[in-house]
Amino acid sequence: MISFRNDYGEGAHESILEALAKQNRIAMIGYGEDEISEEAKKLIVKAIGRECEVHFLVGGTQTNSTVIASLLRPHEGVVSAETGHIAQHESGAVEASGHKVLTMPTSDGKLKADEVRKVFKEHAENEIREHLVKPGLIYVSNPTELGTVYHKDELAALHEVAKDFGVPLFLDGARLGCALAAAENDMTLRDIADNTDVFYIGGTKNGALIGEAVVFSTPGLSRDFRYIEKQRGAMLAKGWILGIEYRELFKDGLYFRLAENAVRLAEKLTAGFKSIGVPLFVESPTNQVFIITTKEQEMKLAEKYVFEFWEPYDETRNVLRFVVSWAQTEENIASLLEDAKKIWEE
Amino acid sequence: MISFRNDYGEGAHESILEALAKQNRIAMIGYGEDEISEEAKKLIVKAIGRECEVHFLVGGTQTNSTVIASLLRPHEGVVSAETGHIAQHESGAVEASGHKVLTMPTSDGKLKADEVRKVFKEHAENEIREHLVKPGLIYVSNPTELGTVYHKDELAALHEVAKDFGVPLFLDGARLGCALAAAENDMTLRDIADNTDVFYIGGTKNGALIGEAVVFSTPGLSRDFRYIEKQRGAMLAKGWILGIEYRELFKDGLYFRLAENAVRLAEKLTAGFKSIGVPLFVESPTNQVFIITTKEQEMKLAEKYVFEFWEPYDETRNVLRFVVSWAQTEENIASLLEDAKKIWEE
Amino acid sequence: MISFRNDYGEGAHESILEALAKQNRIAMIGYGEDEISEEAKKLIVKAIGRECEVHFLVGGTQTNSTVIASLLRPHEGVVSAETGHIAQHESGAVEASGHKVLTMPTSDGKLKADEVRKVFKEHAENEIREHLVKPGLIYVSNPTELGTVYHKDELAALHEVAKDFGVPLFLDGARLGCALAAAENDMTLRDIADNTDVFYIGGTKNGALIGEAVVFSTPGLSRDFRYIEKQRGAMLAKGWILGIEYRELFKDGLYFRLAENAVRLAEKLTAGFKSIGVPLFVESPTNQVFIITTKEQEMKLAEKYVFEFWEPYDETRNVLRFVVSWAQTEENIASLLEDAKKIWEE
Amino acid sequence: MISFRNDYGEGAHESILEALAKQNRIAMIGYGEDEISEEAKKLIVKAIGRECEVHFLVGGTQTNSTVIASLLRPHEGVVSAETGHIAQHESGAVEASGHKVLTMPTSDGKLKADEVRKVFKEHAENEIREHLVKPGLIYVSNPTELGTVYHKDELAALHEVAKDFGVPLFLDGARLGCALAAAENDMTLRDIADNTDVFYIGGTKNGALIGEAVVFSTPGLSRDFRYIEKQRGAMLAKGWILGIEYRELFKDGLYFRLAENAVRLAEKLTAGFKSIGVPLFVESPTNQVFIITTKEQEMKLAEKYVFEFWEPYDETRNVLRFVVSWAQTEENIASLLEDAKKIWEE
Repeated sequence: MISFRNDYGEGAHESILEALAKQNRIAMIGYGEDEISEEAKKLIVKAIGRECEVHFLVGGTQTNSTVIASLLRPHEGVVSAETGHIAQHESGAVEASGHKVLTMPTSDGKLKADEVRKVFKEHAENEIREHLVKPGLIYVSNPTELGTVYHKDELAALHEVAKDFGVPLFLDGARLGCALAAAENDMTLRDIADNTDVFYIGGTKNGALIGEAVVFSTPGLSRDFRYIEKQRGAMLAKGWILGIEYRELFKDGLYFRLAENAVRLAEKLTAGFKSIGVPLFVESPTNQVFIITTKEQEMKLAEKYVFEFWEPYDETRNVLRFVVSWAQTEENIASLLEDAKKIWEE
Repeated sequence: MISFRNDYGEGAHESILEALAKQNRIAMIGYGEDEISEEAKKLIVKAIGRECEVHFLVGGTQTNSTVIASLLRPHEGVVSAETGHIAQHESGAVEASGHKVLTMPTSDGKLKADEVRKVFKEHAENEIREHLVKPGLIYVSNPTELGTVYHKDELAALHEVAKDFGVPLFLDGARLGCALAAAENDMTLRDIADNTDVFYIGGTKNGALIGEAVVFSTPGLSRDFRYIEKQRGAMLAKGWILGIEYRELFKDGLYFRLAENAVRLAEKLTAGFKSIGVPLFVESPTNQVFIITTKEQEMKLAEKYVFEFWEPYDETRNVLRFVVSWAQTEENIASLLEDAKKIWEE
Repeated sequence: MISFRNDYGEGAHESILEALAKQNRIAMIGYGEDEISEEAKKLIVKAIGRECEVHFLVGGTQTNSTVIASLLRPHEGVVSAETGHIAQHESGAVEASGHKVLTMPTSDGKLKADEVRKVFKEHAENEIREHLVKPGLIYVSNPTELGTVYHKDELAALHEVAKDFGVPLFLDGARLGCALAAAENDMTLRDIADNTDVFYIGGTKNGALIGEAVVFSTPGLSRDFRYIEKQRGAMLAKGWILGIEYRELFKDGLYFRLAENAVRLAEKLTAGFKSIGVPLFVESPTNQVFIITTKEQEMKLAEKYVFEFWEPYDETRNVLRFVVSWAQTEENIASLLEDAKKIWEE
Repeated sequence: MISFRNDYGEGAHESILEALAKQNRIAMIGYGEDEISEEAKKLIVKAIGRECEVHFLVGGTQTNSTVIASLLRPHEGVVSAETGHIAQHESGAVEASGHKVLTMPTSDGKLKADEVRKVFKEHAENEIREHLVKPGLIYVSNPTELGTVYHKDELAALHEVAKDFGVPLFLDGARLGCALAAAENDMTLRDIADNTDVFYIGGTKNGALIGEAVVFSTPGLSRDFRYIEKQRGAMLAKGWILGIEYRELFKDGLYFRLAENAVRLAEKLTAGFKSIGVPLFVESPTNQVFIITTKEQEMKLAEKYVFEFWEPYDETRNVLRFVVSWAQTEENIASLLEDAKKIWEE
């Protein structure tokens, strides 16, 4: 079976495993206070190109809920697209920390600045606002859960809203590498940092065994963040593991190359599907490809490929998600397209 | 420098790294639903020798707070020794989930059944008990934070109290291997399972990169535990990493051999210190050795060895903690004792 | 000015004030453990006509969040209509206790059993349900926030769903008196108790100064409820005040007579509006009357009457809410209709 | 039976009941936004003699946990005497909002500035402070749970510590009237306001039916407090009830006169006990009198008087608490002393 199920199915890039093995018997100081973590943070700051504060956490849900809990007062909620990961797939982690997720419908998973501004404005003007949850943070993911990416002007406009209402803008970058590698992307890491207050550079889905690098670009917001990390079980005892991983990922651009591989192959897959006549559910410029199939087509694909059922499309058809991992190969893409061709030609 | 700072300074036993490397490019299903995790769970159940339910989490603070949050209703608290890890060194993780830690003083870090019974009894008989926090769970660590271990009759007596008052008994086994390897230990894994309701087999401090294996021995208590794991950011996307680690640790007794190494070397260290005349702060039968030194002795030791300042002993002396890791060597123990001999002979 | 702003604008029925004055200098035992509270509870149980457990709390938001917090485990959420008070107007009280409100759209504020069943069924069958919030409670309000009422078969059907999925059904009865007094109502208090697991009989909005009487009809659900009341600041020190109020309200049917007054006058108001040609926004059979007016009509009404702006209807018209209190009079209704007639005849 | 059980056993001063009756059928705006509440707040500000922001809440536990939750970030705890109400008798309300109560032993229920400073200093200097709960607030009660009162220099010194470490000082004034009426008191309301950041003027225990007036003297700390009030069920729908109560209590000094009555009678009781030879457990200058009795003496007293068992004193004797309410009379004091004389003369 060839897997397109997700991008956290394989382990880590081999250079990371080698670095871990090399360091293995050297006793390190714990909880991320080691020199390798320091070095890795410096490499990330250098890659961003401006002053920032970096923290290493373990996984995505943990990172989202830890950052959000660190930024809100009890009565505040976080504004998110209805499709946002925090709104859908984190078992209520944000609510468990006491905060409501204030969701907004979107067509493509992306929050629109003018609509978000309206939410803040209407709240501020509402006579009974003290009976409502106060929007205290804006959450976006880039790429979104639908694989779409923010353009610089869109993110800048959201940041403007955030600043106008005195709240932070937080960008979930679980798949940030893929956003940056997208053909239509017009942002650098620096642009991400400049146009948000805090974001993270996902490792789990881009070549690391575990790990998410949280970057605070707005000074002050990170105050006492390590306490909250520790409290929420997000401070890894062997923090230097995360340091080694991010050092390898950022010392010579590996992070970007891995994402490039995923996105370039996903583009091939998309183009191939199109040429065969496989209908796309959404135009995703990153490493997730959503197609519409009959149940018969789905069953045939399932004989050789692993993918995810996304949602029903209509009575007779489903939406399927194919995720192209950083570890995916040209051969597998070619094989999938060849088989798809046969299935759709029948 | 030779490190006795802690037992989470080195990486993982090499067989684990090799197994990770071997599996590295095979795409696995996520979130612990893979076959390797199943296999590892079966090996653990086999090592215990009775029906149990096993879950793999990442770290200790996370495991403690996730288990505790899953077991308590809002008005309930958890009974712990004053020295308990949850009461001291987890940045208020238990309180962050809404629950009070009800602490009891102890001389040696171990809860005594009759004293715990008194707490429950007094609460139950208190006329204004509804104004107090209800004890809803008993937490012990084995070994304790002072390196001491529970004997079977002690744990059985605590379990009896727990059952009498209808609450679970939870054993923090972050260093469980060392407890089982202690000379004075009289319990097997099976005894631990039989005399608690839920416990964990710590991996982070005994040869794994990351990971703690939570074992529910009382049916029903684990209901919906995976939701709570996910909610608290404790469900690793690449759960199969934990599966590989525990498979290696339990397929042929590696877990026990690593702990044996730590404890046997710690015994040598203790015996050596005694013969030299280095005063011990507490008799610890596991892998932590606490000694009392003058500040001059401490400074001399610090020239070549890394250890932890524990607490002041009196005006002129401190308590130091030397932790003997699973990765520690005979040579380092010999070297430390040789140098200590010189220092104490001066 | 004549007020139709709400039904918590006046104090208490005079018999309650008199009873309070009579009892005033007699020292009572605190926290609801007094004899008067016992007596009041018995009167309520008698009015219901079956075994129940009654607790007195102070206000609506407090009652909702205390009951909900007492019933859910950490990963569970509460199913509510999108218009539900807990979803809209409680400043995130449910989320502050760690739980998500799982909202469903409705046309009339009433949950439909088959739609709720679908939510539970889909959750149970979802392969990644552990990544979602588990529905653990059903919340309805009767009357709803739109003034509509549940019929017995509708509530029974919801209760059936709740029982099928092993969760409780909780009915917010902040205005329960008005629901029972509605012309189209086909339920008694007994029916409410039989077809829910816990509900409350609102006092604040029906003749008491303060107070809500929570009724648990399903044994076991109330276990340790008083601890949680106390923890959430909902256990009144002078609990006997609530006892006196409910004794007066239930000793000879005052509770029902007050609601009768509100609903009968609201019916007159509705009928009057209709005969004049004032358009209704929704057909509300209880004590809230929603009308649609132009902004000119609204301004004219506002010269003499106090009411609430509900929401914009369209570009030129608004929805206004007129609440008929238990203390409202025939004269005021007549006056309002007379003035409305003039305004609409212009 | 004559009651000395507590000071929340009687209703309200009659002038309050009369004012409530007078206002009873006038429809008011809800949630504390009425004019009477405004008037009452102005009277309180005037009594204090400086700029302050006043909020009316319902009860003590609610007020403590609402204020504390509004002031802390997730990783912060509140420093309190071991005997503090929040540490003992609120069913874990503070923990339920996510925060640890950091308790300190005291001989008399009063925090000492130098000891508190040490706690903050040691935390700040602790190398592993991020693994501990950060002290983020200082909580004192005046009078304390043992009836003792703070002197101005003591409170000022605590405020100095608070300012030095950038945290607020919160004073629980559930019985503040009695503190101010104590013979040894050297503070005015203004001094309380000047030497804390937020405090409250308890109504429940001093002549009101319900109600606590929270006073923020440090600007900024109250930001969005009403949201948090609402969220925690502490915003009374009929907020004007609290307004009426505090208007009556502060329009001509009634609040102070009621406390005077309680404290003067308590002084008589203490003096009488002393002259009879009844041993005191603690010298309390306010309205709580703690005596030590044999079990026989206790039983004899219990024939005619209601009081509270406080704690065992030794094998054969108990500590009893007699609370002198604002509504207590000279006659009852005389009666109690007369009977005590007989019992102790036997």
